[in-house]
Amino acid sequence: MTNTIEAIGAKTAVITSEALLKHWQGHRGLTRRVLNAFPEKELFEFSIGGMRPYAELSKELIGLASGGINGFTTGSWATKPELDHFNPEADLTTKQRLLDAWDEVTAQLNAQWSQIPAEHFKDTVLAFGQFENTVIDTILYFIDNENHHRGQGYVYLRALGIEPPAFWDR
Amino acid sequence: MTNTIEAIGAKTAVITSEALLKHWQGHRGLTRRVLNAFPEKELFEFSIGGMRPYAELSKELIGLASGGINGFTTGSWATKPELDHFNPEADLTTKQRLLDAWDEVTAQLNAQWSQIPAEHFKDTVLAFGQFENTVIDTILYFIDNENHHRGQGYVYLRALGIEPPAFWDR
Repeated sequence: MTNTIEAIGAKTAVITSEALLKHWQGHRGLTRRVLNAFPEKELFEFSIGGMRPYAELSKELIGLASGGINGFTTGSWATKPELDHFNPEADLTTKQRLLDAWDEVTAQLNAQWSQIPAEHFKDTVLAFGQFENTVIDTILYFIDNENHHRGQGYVYLRALGIEPPAFWDR
Repeated sequence: MTNTIEAIGAKTAVITSEALLKHWQGHRGLTRRVLNAFPEKELFEFSIGGMRPYAELSKELIGLASGGINGFTTGSWATKPELDHFNPEADLTTKQRLLDAWDEVTAQLNAQWSQIPAEHFKDTVLAFGQFENTVIDTILYFIDNENHHRGQGYVYLRALGIEPPAFWDR
């Protein structure tokens, strides 16, 4: 390989905004199926090693995605009180409510995604007033965080004797 | 937002090849720290719900990354016998050997990454003769699979009473 080819390779754009949304929504579909695989009681109560139950992890993912897309598009990292994982009064107390909230955020991401200005992806933002990073790395962090917690959910399901959804199916 | 701005947004390149390697290596550094956090015995023996011990997961990640970068750059999805997770004779039987193999693959990825031709990222390949997907989606799958299994490792460590490395530190 010549230096010229290496230089071109290094600068190659490999993911577009549109592809990134599709990638995230593919993950979100699987994460929803993992949520749906939990029995009602265990969703809110089961844990291993002092970690949070899967309902709590789901609330975090709902709040980060909903407040996150608002932050990327408007600069305000807020969302509706019932979707806000920082809100101790948020009322996502049944599996059905969590699934409905999940679906609401799926639609919200689809509706608002293209409103992230092209040049904004490389800007540095302070997500939720706490996490300083570029927009693109903040989005990747949200996806990674979801994948990480979903992996935790797989262990919970296996420990409960429940076959989790196929990881590769997105 | 006008349709024009939406169209530009949809086609925005948000990740370059160089950034993707940095992203993956950031993940790989954390996954190595999780590996290193296991006690020798539990690394090879501890599991929950019938899942594989973390040593087995690590071997899979080593083999996929090493054979994968060879596949992307040469079309041959093979690697050295001792790094090949499909090889039942592979000799990664201690934590130190796993760490050394991990580091070898880290260097391999850095050395070969820029040899992925720019136009190849969108090509469809049959990774390891089994998994048909584009190069870019295959790479994302490897990263996602690593994150997924590492999340499993976090639960194992917590169940063992061991504080895992910080997820955000990459």
